[in-house]
Amino acid sequence: MKDEIRIGIVGYGRLGRGVELSVAQQPDMTLAGIYSRRSPGKLTALSAETPVESVAALEKGDAPVDVLILCGGSRDDLPHQSPRYARQYNIVDSYDHHARIPEHLAAVDEAAQVAQRSAIISSGWDPGLFSLQRLIGEAFLPEGKTYTFWGEGVSQGHSDVIRRLPGVAGAVQYTIPLESAIEAVEGGEQPELTAGESHRRECYVVLAPGADAEAVREAIVSMPDYFEPYQTQVHFITQAQLEAEHAEIPHGGYVIRSAETGGGASQLIQTRLALGSNPEFTASVLVAYARAAYRLCERGDFGAKTVFDIAPVLLSAKDPAELYRELL
Amino acid sequence: MKDEIRIGIVGYGRLGRGVELSVAQQPDMTLAGIYSRRSPGKLTALSAETPVESVAALEKGDAPVDVLILCGGSRDDLPHQSPRYARQYNIVDSYDHHARIPEHLAAVDEAAQVAQRSAIISSGWDPGLFSLQRLIGEAFLPEGKTYTFWGEGVSQGHSDVIRRLPGVAGAVQYTIPLESAIEAVEGGEQPELTAGESHRRECYVVLAPGADAEAVREAIVSMPDYFEPYQTQVHFITQAQLEAEHAEIPHGGYVIRSAETGGGASQLIQTRLALGSNPEFTASVLVAYARAAYRLCERGDFGAKTVFDIAPVLLSAKDPAELYRELL
Repeated sequence: MKDEIRIGIVGYGRLGRGVELSVAQQPDMTLAGIYSRRSPGKLTALSAETPVESVAALEKGDAPVDVLILCGGSRDDLPHQSPRYARQYNIVDSYDHHARIPEHLAAVDEAAQVAQRSAIISSGWDPGLFSLQRLIGEAFLPEGKTYTFWGEGVSQGHSDVIRRLPGVAGAVQYTIPLESAIEAVEGGEQPELTAGESHRRECYVVLAPGADAEAVREAIVSMPDYFEPYQTQVHFITQAQLEAEHAEIPHGGYVIRSAETGGGASQLIQTRLALGSNPEFTASVLVAYARAAYRLCERGDFGAKTVFDIAPVLLSAKDPAELYRELL
Repeated sequence: MKDEIRIGIVGYGRLGRGVELSVAQQPDMTLAGIYSRRSPGKLTALSAETPVESVAALEKGDAPVDVLILCGGSRDDLPHQSPRYARQYNIVDSYDHHARIPEHLAAVDEAAQVAQRSAIISSGWDPGLFSLQRLIGEAFLPEGKTYTFWGEGVSQGHSDVIRRLPGVAGAVQYTIPLESAIEAVEGGEQPELTAGESHRRECYVVLAPGADAEAVREAIVSMPDYFEPYQTQVHFITQAQLEAEHAEIPHGGYVIRSAETGGGASQLIQTRLALGSNPEFTASVLVAYARAAYRLCERGDFGAKTVFDIAPVLLSAKDPAELYRELL
């Protein structure tokens, strides 16, 4: 029997819990532990068998872990955690500040090259699976347009900016692609779409005591970039409704490549995700790339990579011969 | 300026013409020539600028070509052509006898390893893009089911068996996925579907003079494996109608992964192709993999590979840094 790949989780929010659940579904992995900044007694893992440790246990670089999956946030955690842990461990992260990915890649690559470790950054579904579909669509069909639609699903960033407004006690924001836009793209029309022609936004807001609903609504819908360019609806609800009706975190979306080949034929490649749980899906993608990171290190292919650099065969628990036979 | 990748086409039917059209869309490729068993004077390329040569010009292994794209059939041509040309050139093929792929891969690998050339076999869309989507779906979501639906589109194999029946002068067969099946899968039900519950078949048949329509219809619908398990409709048309209404070769289909992550959430990844021209799309995929084969050989990564083994970055004409910036 082959040794199982030992996974460590750094950061135990929704994404970390998703990784714990996903590792349990893998035939070739074991969960070495959750490493948290919280004191271990204050953190309860989903499974009683999961070891819980302090992040301090990672410091010497000798924790019994083959790959660390970093489950912190892209704003405050990953910019320093990813290079820091790549100096001692193989790592995978879900860094999602698209504009800063080259900078993040360079920092993690430098650390991993020196340490002879393998890192895969910015995995998940966007960046991640959707990025792959964009690349494939463009490479197979060079003369065309690529469209990405997000939703229907909860946008954490947009929910957060509403929560920070005066008079708001709680909020969830759903991003919803406009059916008219998707239909136009599916029809091969290759339309030019502005932001507001692609998506609309629905906000469910709990007011703070004494807050002026109309002022809050106006503050939301007039917010530049975030809401002003979109059709935005604001619904006021109670805290109880927020908890009862908006606790799930579904998401999804579309990547569509609409193009013409050289003889004038219309060609369409469309990928759709419908996710019952965004963090559980993102976690599952991270876990597959953790397998790839482990294999890269085993073969001496060190440094930081992205989903674009990973041969699909490295993602699967199955042997290549089995994949050729069953799935090709 | 970088040297352009010089592509050679072996076999000039619909697929070969698709490759000619696709190479013209690539910024980094040039068409070195069409190599045909027909005498060059009898073959007219789509572009007057395309050199047309006899396959004999490939014999010495010194033709001015970086990658040969083999556009012959999987039954009679590729089993001997692919290993034969991999002894002298980098090659790409679209070998599609799923059950015999391991055998074909081994034969091409042996030839390419000895010759220090790089080969990518079984590219196209199924096997090819659909295989990739099956692998990704299963790797990201290990607990679930994968469904492949083909169509609506022309099945060459099914059209051919009709054409070989007594009393048939011409025929085209369309494979059509059943909407009820796709809807059940999209709804997350993970149904067990038999062949006949997944697809239906429509046949457009031109009768030979004096043929008995009812006998031909019966011969089709009762044919084991090919038609008997399916709802099959047979329409009799004239040769003029066949030429006017059934000359296009659209195709497409779906790969759907329906699964549950560890917390019980339903997750769906769906890829849909809607192809105005099957051979032009297949050709476009082969051309992208020709780029990858060229790059593999440049870096000394010899032997035969499949789409599962190719890092996506190798498919694109763009630099990795550009891809990270624009598409990740």
